[in-house]
Amino acid sequence: MRNIKVGIWGFGAMGSGMAKMLLKKEGIDVVAVCDRNAKRKDRSMYDVLGVERGERPEVIINSNPELVFTEKSVDVALLATDSFTKNAYDRIKFVLEQKINVISTAEELAYPQAQQPELAKSLDEVAKSNGVSLLGTGINPGFVLDLLILALTGTCEEVEHIKASRVNDLSPFGRAVMVEQGVGITKETFEKGVKNGSIAGHVGFPESINMITDGIGWNLEKVDQTREPIMSSVYRKTDYVEVEAGNVAGCRQCGYGYVDGQVKIEMEHPQQVLPHLEGQKTGDYITITGTPNINLQITPEIPGGIGTIAMCVNSIPHVINAKPGLKTMLDIPVPRAMMGDVRELIEVEIESTVEA
Amino acid sequence: MRNIKVGIWGFGAMGSGMAKMLLKKEGIDVVAVCDRNAKRKDRSMYDVLGVERGERPEVIINSNPELVFTEKSVDVALLATDSFTKNAYDRIKFVLEQKINVISTAEELAYPQAQQPELAKSLDEVAKSNGVSLLGTGINPGFVLDLLILALTGTCEEVEHIKASRVNDLSPFGRAVMVEQGVGITKETFEKGVKNGSIAGHVGFPESINMITDGIGWNLEKVDQTREPIMSSVYRKTDYVEVEAGNVAGCRQCGYGYVDGQVKIEMEHPQQVLPHLEGQKTGDYITITGTPNINLQITPEIPGGIGTIAMCVNSIPHVINAKPGLKTMLDIPVPRAMMGDVRELIEVEIESTVEA
Repeated sequence: MRNIKVGIWGFGAMGSGMAKMLLKKEGIDVVAVCDRNAKRKDRSMYDVLGVERGERPEVIINSNPELVFTEKSVDVALLATDSFTKNAYDRIKFVLEQKINVISTAEELAYPQAQQPELAKSLDEVAKSNGVSLLGTGINPGFVLDLLILALTGTCEEVEHIKASRVNDLSPFGRAVMVEQGVGITKETFEKGVKNGSIAGHVGFPESINMITDGIGWNLEKVDQTREPIMSSVYRKTDYVEVEAGNVAGCRQCGYGYVDGQVKIEMEHPQQVLPHLEGQKTGDYITITGTPNINLQITPEIPGGIGTIAMCVNSIPHVINAKPGLKTMLDIPVPRAMMGDVRELIEVEIESTVEA
Repeated sequence: MRNIKVGIWGFGAMGSGMAKMLLKKEGIDVVAVCDRNAKRKDRSMYDVLGVERGERPEVIINSNPELVFTEKSVDVALLATDSFTKNAYDRIKFVLEQKINVISTAEELAYPQAQQPELAKSLDEVAKSNGVSLLGTGINPGFVLDLLILALTGTCEEVEHIKASRVNDLSPFGRAVMVEQGVGITKETFEKGVKNGSIAGHVGFPESINMITDGIGWNLEKVDQTREPIMSSVYRKTDYVEVEAGNVAGCRQCGYGYVDGQVKIEMEHPQQVLPHLEGQKTGDYITITGTPNINLQITPEIPGGIGTIAMCVNSIPHVINAKPGLKTMLDIPVPRAMMGDVRELIEVEIESTVEA
């Protein structure tokens, strides 16, 4: 079997991270990159990554998706361009129409049925009519607050209540994330930002909660969310942001899923810079009340950047193997690390392409 | 769609536990039970379970499998009769030949490729030629020391080493388990029992280790196992066993998976009665060294009995949906709790049976 061919659309931190990960894997090649950023377009992917090309064919980053993704030009495209289904829709549709499988980092795509059921249905139809499949995944949504919870419930006879918390450190992230999460600003500015939508906080609670309730067969009535400032009582400073004592160190977001008139799913996701300065430890925590009760912790938390990169890349064989259509983590076997030849994980025929 | 029909073969703690769980679920019925135990055969399943029959049709426990399992008489049979593939083989083959899907609690069946590749191949062929599928699962093997580890590796770019430990309390278990694990005997008798095979310890390390290495693409060279007595320095007593100070409280079993000449997988499973009497806490622990490192704990451990019952029952829809053949946890979507109508999880046509 020839090597699996991967294309990447969006070569920021996530897209370039996936390329770096893939270059270390066997039986799979990154053969095309689409990115319109002036600092990257028309340059060698290897130069941008700072990785030796060696004997590998050159890959020039192209800003025109119509030149990068043509019919079956790659087996799977990794899209790291958006957070929202609405914004990603046209790009995904275009790639699916080239008969190319798609994996997206867009948080809403992890379970687009939650907030965009019409677009989800349309993408499912486009994928099916082109004989390919589409998956949205990442560390969260995609793993910590949904797939991992679902997996634990598999050991339960009954589930009564689910509480989960992801406490992480935003310090490694850059300016865009600081703005989205309201880090470094005053309480008043934060509250205004939540009202006018400029402080997005975490995207994914409705997706994680819907994935869980659909997965275990609970009838979800509504999802509520809150966003509160995490006030710092000390001075905090990272490479990208300064937080004066008394200002906002991050955003504490909560999500609540109502079933039978009760909150049966509670999620908490406080994201801030340098939480240890106030003695806050980071980690992923899940408590299931049921038969049996389950109490899990992962400390420190699984890091967001690497985790999202790995979940997307490790899902490649499962998306290629899947029956056509829109897939979620409810449908495919659990993704796992790929330490051997990736081709050995492919169970379907992959056709030769024009330039094979 | 009519209700899903389940048959159970072996009505001890596991089989009867699965029946009790199923009786609380919607869209699925237990319609047949096979058990040759004199205390149970020819009696009403409901009487044996101590559960009100209500409006449900009577189910009389039958000791003759040929009367219980006829062509397509049920959609899935749960087999809770064995630990070893060799012993379960004839029973499973017989049920598959009735065009009935099978889920087995036999530990070796969780990954029969590990120690019985020929039998695994044969069962795969029998399942395929009868258009049904077969899965072995349980809490361990089946979840804690394999599927859960594999799921965590999905968030990793690279995995270098895996260490996992399941520390549990055997106190709820009966006399048979006490004998198998050597509880209450002297060190000398324990060591003789390990040599002559009468102290089986945990069945499943080769299965879990092979599932992991095949799952992530490591080339496994060999599996080593050790069994040591856990010596008690205090007197311990349960309903089923007494341990004098200085005697054996349980069996500490370790498993080692060699890859590239190195131990890359280390598993530890100390099983004893009343570990808290010597300050030993119970729990499930996983440490992955890689990119990133992951450190998980579940405390206390997911209980073995309920966990195995739930994993088998919650796998029913996935086994019905699966393509024909021998399946493992590497192949099917992650099983999750079933809190709604189980029929909604079925994606294939289930045919009407003779007595429908």
